[in-house]
Amino acid sequence: DVSATDFQSSHNTVTLPGLVNVAGVVPDIAIAGSSDIADFTKVSLRSGFTFSRLLPMGVSESIIDLASLQTAQANAEGHSFTDYNLSVAATAHNANEVGKVTGKVGSLVLPFSKLGDNTTKVAAISEHFGAWPANKPIVTDATTTDLASILLLASLHNRPIHVTGVVDKNDIVLVAMAKERGLAVTCDVSVFALFFAREDYPEAHSLPTQEDQDALWANLATIDCFSVGILPSQMAKELGQPVVAGLGVAETLPLLLSAVADKRLTVEDIEARLYTNPVRIFELVEQPDTSIVVNLGRKYTFKSKGLWSPMAGKPATGSVERVIVGGQTVVLEGDLNGASTGKAISIHPQAAPVEAAPATQEMV
Amino acid sequence: DVSATDFQSSHNTVTLPGLVNVAGVVPDIAIAGSSDIADFTKVSLRSGFTFSRLLPMGVSESIIDLASLQTAQANAEGHSFTDYNLSVAATAHNANEVGKVTGKVGSLVLPFSKLGDNTTKVAAISEHFGAWPANKPIVTDATTTDLASILLLASLHNRPIHVTGVVDKNDIVLVAMAKERGLAVTCDVSVFALFFAREDYPEAHSLPTQEDQDALWANLATIDCFSVGILPSQMAKELGQPVVAGLGVAETLPLLLSAVADKRLTVEDIEARLYTNPVRIFELVEQPDTSIVVNLGRKYTFKSKGLWSPMAGKPATGSVERVIVGGQTVVLEGDLNGASTGKAISIHPQAAPVEAAPATQEMV
Ligand SMILES: [Zn+2]
Ligand SMILES: [Zn+2]
Ligand SMILES: [Zn+2]
Ligand SMILES: [Zn+2]
Ligand SMILES: [Zn+2]
Ligand SMILES: [Zn+2]
Ligand SMILES: [Zn+2]
Ligand SMILES: [Zn+2]
Repeated sequence: DVSATDFQSSHNTVTLPGLVNVAGVVPDIAIAGSSDIADFTKVSLRSGFTFSRLLPMGVSESIIDLASLQTAQANAEGHSFTDYNLSVAATAHNANEVGKVTGKVGSLVLPFSKLGDNTTKVAAISEHFGAWPANKPIVTDATTTDLASILLLASLHNRPIHVTGVVDKNDIVLVAMAKERGLAVTCDVSVFALFFAREDYPEAHSLPTQEDQDALWANLATIDCFSVGILPSQMAKELGQPVVAGLGVAETLPLLLSAVADKRLTVEDIEARLYTNPVRIFELVEQPDTSIVVNLGRKYTFKSKGLWSPMAGKPATGSVERVIVGGQTVVLEGDLNGASTGKAISIHPQAAPVEAAPATQEMV
Repeated sequence: DVSATDFQSSHNTVTLPGLVNVAGVVPDIAIAGSSDIADFTKVSLRSGFTFSRLLPMGVSESIIDLASLQTAQANAEGHSFTDYNLSVAATAHNANEVGKVTGKVGSLVLPFSKLGDNTTKVAAISEHFGAWPANKPIVTDATTTDLASILLLASLHNRPIHVTGVVDKNDIVLVAMAKERGLAVTCDVSVFALFFAREDYPEAHSLPTQEDQDALWANLATIDCFSVGILPSQMAKELGQPVVAGLGVAETLPLLLSAVADKRLTVEDIEARLYTNPVRIFELVEQPDTSIVVNLGRKYTFKSKGLWSPMAGKPATGSVERVIVGGQTVVLEGDLNGASTGKAISIHPQAAPVEAAPATQEMV
């Protein structure tokens, strides 16, 4: 934890560690020359995130092997505004190929949803559980019976599993049941799932129903992490908006802080789910002298700054005043500090061989 | 076990307990006035089965509530040639209704396949696990991710689960893995799945591929029971044959005994899977003075006796010589003893209230 004594704090201001986004969606993550990672991490840093776990599933190409990983690495290296790690997505046929990138990624993702290809075959998933190193995180976005199936396989293979982007009532109840019975399962919920419901956006089929959303709030204790996740991108797509990098990022903290103002959440609820639990689950080390200053009481009208947002023009309470990385203020009232803008943040493979020390911050 | 001393045995003859069919398919089980249960149990008794667990899924109507159970009971009472029990099928909406028939049935079946309606919603299944008494068997014919999902829920609810009619390689491997990890799971495989493959019957999509079949044989230790099951009826349907009661029953023992002659199985393998394990898993009590005499060496041409059979006209080795129930020979060389033909065999609800003693045999 970062001490509050570094900064002058008022009754309206709290200092938190730099936030971790456990599930960042980058549409062209594996397309050569894409600036999506730069764009995504730029809005992330401005919004209080200092670490981004980037999901491997892109819109047309995903990170599924060494070649696509190298493409994503090239897009990230020297261009990312936050510390980050990349992951690799499982397919029905890449269990062996994945072995070649294990040391270079933060986790294996078993994708079932929306952007990635579907690997529902039990055999393929089982193969991946067999091949992936026991000490590295496995993540899935599976739902309903696919989720139950993955939880069983994780349990049979004695592996912890992280479920990302839980939306459905049945799924959060299943995760709660599995936790109760001692399965090593954790989960995140997209902040959008807590605040936007299908009843208000009938075309946005990926959103929870009000009943689902109520169940998510009722199971807050089961939710280990809040994430940006895939949901803002799905919602945009379903509403006919362009899917670009950074959707939903800027809204995350204002939505949560407004819920603090409404007494639906505490600041500690947020810190646990955007820092403490993410760091523990994904074995991230603390970023030195990195913190954010949040103004809890500030009331304002949310501005979307070029990206589609369901919050655009709506009232919000609470915002990021300052982002400090390595002792330097890199964001002040939403403005990026020029000196830090181009700072390359390198990748942090878990349990990877020690790299030649780069001229950048390292989390691991 | 029945002693061999009751009967004159030659080197070619063995005496076994009366066989248990753990999964009998009766097309019109819940249609008023149907003679399907009579027809099914008649061919069963002739074929060496003295107990029939009848699956609740019919072609057009299934046993899903008290009314449909009473219809099936009326079809069975006074007409069944073997001891039997009925089961109830779960639907998405009958978890409460099922409570009314718990004491009158042998098990709850969670049907996913082919004849029954599909209850893939995790919530509905979870509801059934919550509502069904812990001391009574739960059976499913789920496959792939549905199977994994059911196994997880059974494990979360701390319930033993029996998987009926395993066909697929992935499924038998999953069951083997689950057993290895200590889950309370048992399974049966239709005898047809061990002897008929899709390569020889391209239209019969329900049959295992040769690779599946090889995996079943390789995992024989994982297979707790052999069954008649749904597969003969599916195979008939897929080959354009009428689906009537009793398909596949007469072939069961000849197929298995021919495999004994071929040294692919032992008689003890058969006894374990058609008597000992079924009695243990489904908590059936021994049928007094009930046994069958099997001629192991007899070579003959299989005759189908009015029912479609993939074995018709093919050579077989080994057959049932005699069936003894309650000390009486009721079948001799395939002929039903007139005196026993109409004998009513009553239902055996597990853990049901004690019934007024009927003038029939009781297993429980
Ligand atoms: Zn703190
Ligand atoms: Zn570059
Ligand atoms: Zn394993
Ligand atoms: Zn829902
Ligand atoms: Zn014996
Ligand atoms: Zn009658
Ligand atoms: Zn339960
Ligand atoms: Zn198969």
